[in-house]
Amino acid sequence: MNYKPLHPDAIQAAHKRIGQYIHHTPLLQSGLLNNWLGHEVIFKAENMQKTGAFKIRGALNTLLSLKEIGEMPDEVVTFSSGNHAQAVAMAASKFGVKVTVFMPESASEIKKQATESHGARVITTKTREQAESEAAQMAKQGAYLIHPFDNDFVIAGQGTVCYEALKDNSNISAIFATCGGGGLLSGTYLASKLLAPQAVVIAGEPAIANDAAKSFHAGVIKSLDASPKTIADGARTLAVSQRTFHYLKQLNGFFEVSEEEIIYWSQWLSHLLKVLVEPTSAVAMAAAFKWLQTQDKKQQVLVILSGGNISSEIHSIMWQHDYLKLLPHFST
Amino acid sequence: MNYKPLHPDAIQAAHKRIGQYIHHTPLLQSGLLNNWLGHEVIFKAENMQKTGAFKIRGALNTLLSLKEIGEMPDEVVTFSSGNHAQAVAMAASKFGVKVTVFMPESASEIKKQATESHGARVITTKTREQAESEAAQMAKQGAYLIHPFDNDFVIAGQGTVCYEALKDNSNISAIFATCGGGGLLSGTYLASKLLAPQAVVIAGEPAIANDAAKSFHAGVIKSLDASPKTIADGARTLAVSQRTFHYLKQLNGFFEVSEEEIIYWSQWLSHLLKVLVEPTSAVAMAAAFKWLQTQDKKQQVLVILSGGNISSEIHSIMWQHDYLKLLPHFST
Repeated sequence: MNYKPLHPDAIQAAHKRIGQYIHHTPLLQSGLLNNWLGHEVIFKAENMQKTGAFKIRGALNTLLSLKEIGEMPDEVVTFSSGNHAQAVAMAASKFGVKVTVFMPESASEIKKQATESHGARVITTKTREQAESEAAQMAKQGAYLIHPFDNDFVIAGQGTVCYEALKDNSNISAIFATCGGGGLLSGTYLASKLLAPQAVVIAGEPAIANDAAKSFHAGVIKSLDASPKTIADGARTLAVSQRTFHYLKQLNGFFEVSEEEIIYWSQWLSHLLKVLVEPTSAVAMAAAFKWLQTQDKKQQVLVILSGGNISSEIHSIMWQHDYLKLLPHFST
Repeated sequence: MNYKPLHPDAIQAAHKRIGQYIHHTPLLQSGLLNNWLGHEVIFKAENMQKTGAFKIRGALNTLLSLKEIGEMPDEVVTFSSGNHAQAVAMAASKFGVKVTVFMPESASEIKKQATESHGARVITTKTREQAESEAAQMAKQGAYLIHPFDNDFVIAGQGTVCYEALKDNSNISAIFATCGGGGLLSGTYLASKLLAPQAVVIAGEPAIANDAAKSFHAGVIKSLDASPKTIADGARTLAVSQRTFHYLKQLNGFFEVSEEEIIYWSQWLSHLLKVLVEPTSAVAMAAAFKWLQTQDKKQQVLVILSGGNISSEIHSIMWQHDYLKLLPHFST
């Protein structure tokens, strides 16, 4: 592969570029949780970001980078069933760029509506794969493709989440994020090299969507055959890309977590932090919990809460069973 | 009645007293909601307060006021099925004061646990009425009763929610809060006189728990016969007190809202603001929505989100139906 990796400075440059257009989201903690665990868990509340997820950062950095080099497109295209769709739609509308989003019909109506309300043309396809290939087709005809993760501008933009968190507090021994296509984790890895080289960077992934964990252990990219039914809808990607795998294979570990663990932490983090935590974000906390259990010394860790967009259907699944009865202590 | 009403300055004094012990909670807005309604709705996010609700303000102000006059008790007692219990437990533990809380057995296990985890002795009773009478009994034996609303220190403390919000932004034409026992609204009324005398103050109440609305219209206190089954568990009070009614009868209006409207706004505010909004808080927004519908001129209003403590059971009821399909436009 000829991929020329990004220098960590690219994250700083991206943050300078997009800073004025985004929220500087807060770091949250729960005193109760810290007491229970005997560690300090710091949450980057990117669920409070514009459009409810970190994805706006990558979309904005792409358009602003293109503008900087005099290549602002008239039209962009993407494919997504969720947060990336809204992000691209909002970023494009900000600069008066035409935007088309291909969405699989499984995407929730509310996400479709939100994307349209930012002025995007939404075209529904039968499957995720069709959405992707239709977008690629349109890109061949001249629209710029803002890929959800296989794009250096996008990776650099997503890295600003961790960059911003570490600017606020770099005294961190481990950083946790959820792996979908790997854009967020690639950027997180780069940001950590810049501001917290002492920290390990660890991925969480749903066990029933463990393509990236398998790839990590095998050293080559492994794909899933069919879209997995995990409740963590941001981690349903079939495979990572060569670009993101370049960074992912350098991570310090992958934790696979069960659907029950995902729902458990979705409930508990919502309850403790009083913010909406989408299941995809809870994956990172489930991974952090597993790692912290192995630590003898008190640790201060960063958990990236990637988003807070939860459809009514996911809400109702999330609250079918009461996990708040089971306190998050370590079993001793 | 010989009740000597509080001067609005009492709210300012309370804020000075408790300021260092509480969070200065943020004002939130949703651009999307403002666009849809054609008005500016500003939310005081008291769901982000310590213990997840405004109640800590009244509890702290009571203890600190007693301390100021050299009457700090050795022991306090209260009765509550929810947020007030945790607040009193936390405030008392901060000052090393012994605390007993009588809770009806209908109170959720998680609220009981949280109250105990602050070091309170929790005694379960069969009914709300028994919890109240047991607490009164114990107060006769020397413990200081921190009543959930029928106490001037408590009222002054709760008034600091609105005081703080208006300090941040006093350019408000209407203020909305939910009526339970009336403590929050009494304090809100006083704070408005101090910082935004131009604003109308309007209460929301569940239609199936409309004792205060009926009292407001009748000019005398009306009681409910039995504890109403509204999902807004903070508004299940059977009757307001003479003390709070003194302020409530001076409000500019009461809106009664249906259970469906409460759930509708619980879903939408959670979705738009990405914070947990308990149904009791959504009552205030449902009232604001009704009022805004009658306004021709663009208004800037304040809606107090009183808390974010939602049991798993309430979550599952809240998300049984999908109201996010119905956008909150005014019908024209």
